[in-house]
Amino acid sequence: MRVLGIDCGTEYTGYGIVDLLADSRNNDRLVCIICGCIKVSPRDPMPTRLSRISIGLQELILQHRPDRVAIEDVFYSANVKSALKLGQVRGVAMLAAASAGLEVAEYSPLSIKSAVVGYGRAEKHQVQQMVMRLLNLNQIPPSADAADALAIAICHLHTAATHERQSTPANQKSRSSYSRPSPESAAPRTTRKCTPC
Amino acid sequence: MRVLGIDCGTEYTGYGIVDLLADSRNNDRLVCIICGCIKVSPRDPMPTRLSRISIGLQELILQHRPDRVAIEDVFYSANVKSALKLGQVRGVAMLAAASAGLEVAEYSPLSIKSAVVGYGRAEKHQVQQMVMRLLNLNQIPPSADAADALAIAICHLHTAATHERQSTPANQKSRSSYSRPSPESAAPRTTRKCTPC
Repeated sequence: MRVLGIDCGTEYTGYGIVDLLADSRNNDRLVCIICGCIKVSPRDPMPTRLSRISIGLQELILQHRPDRVAIEDVFYSANVKSALKLGQVRGVAMLAAASAGLEVAEYSPLSIKSAVVGYGRAEKHQVQQMVMRLLNLNQIPPSADAADALAIAICHLHTAATHERQSTPANQKSRSSYSRPSPESAAPRTTRKCTPC
Repeated sequence: MRVLGIDCGTEYTGYGIVDLLADSRNNDRLVCIICGCIKVSPRDPMPTRLSRISIGLQELILQHRPDRVAIEDVFYSANVKSALKLGQVRGVAMLAAASAGLEVAEYSPLSIKSAVVGYGRAEKHQVQQMVMRLLNLNQIPPSADAADALAIAICHLHTAATHERQSTPANQKSRSSYSRPSPESAAPRTTRKCTPC
């Protein structure tokens, strides 16, 4: 399964595409396909910014053909104005997915941190460290928004694998053998897939 | 000038297209081209609903080719969750306009009521009555969301005409002679342009 995680923002919208692949021992592993962020100028009118975000996401979907899109569910905002602005970007992200016939899964920040770090109240740098280790990146993704987007994609794959295991009878082997690896088991390796914003 | 007013909502998104035309005495008058609302089921996933709203608005823009889009600016919401949901629909509406190369104007509820009724704290039924009279409709628009969308379009035309008069030197005649008519001066006439949701 290939998942596009999107971290919506009115200035930086992070994206990260993660594959769940079987390795030579038939164990599933997570692979980062691409990550980065779509930057828009806060000086541009909102419709122009939304149009650029929409085009960027459509291009990503067309080029990398994910099977699913995952975004963060939001419960808190400083005020109504900023919630509305964030909602506008979320609407455009959801529309890009729906237009490509893709389902959208939403995860709370607590679920994302739990899936990636194993602790729902983890700090931002802990999430970034674990994203780097789980995806065998040689460094922390250069953009915090891209790291968050990868964490959302990992959360979806983790949740989907857990659901599959739960729905498979005990006497049958689950198709997915993925479970969140410990940070120590993942050896860093070189990658150039993540670009700074 | 032809304006598409949009009243964004997560279940009913009202729309109303209004023209500013010159009558036989070379006085400007407001004409309702079409109004109605795009209804989506609250049982459908949000991306599906957004997709339907987007397609509906794109079809309207393609068919009626407005010069400008106007939407309501929002400052209040019951909670962050509902602000985010409304923002998602606003984002899709803004994107539909931007994709067609149209600018989007935003007006506060106070500005809309002032432009239509002449009083910023007018009640909903007063706005609907004035929309009917200003556009010479034979009845109040059958959907409250459509009436609100028409009010937003009227507000934009009223504001644009005011700006034009203010920017025209005193010794030159303004191109637009439009000013908000009194309710008594507008005689109701038959129209079938507004459809119930």
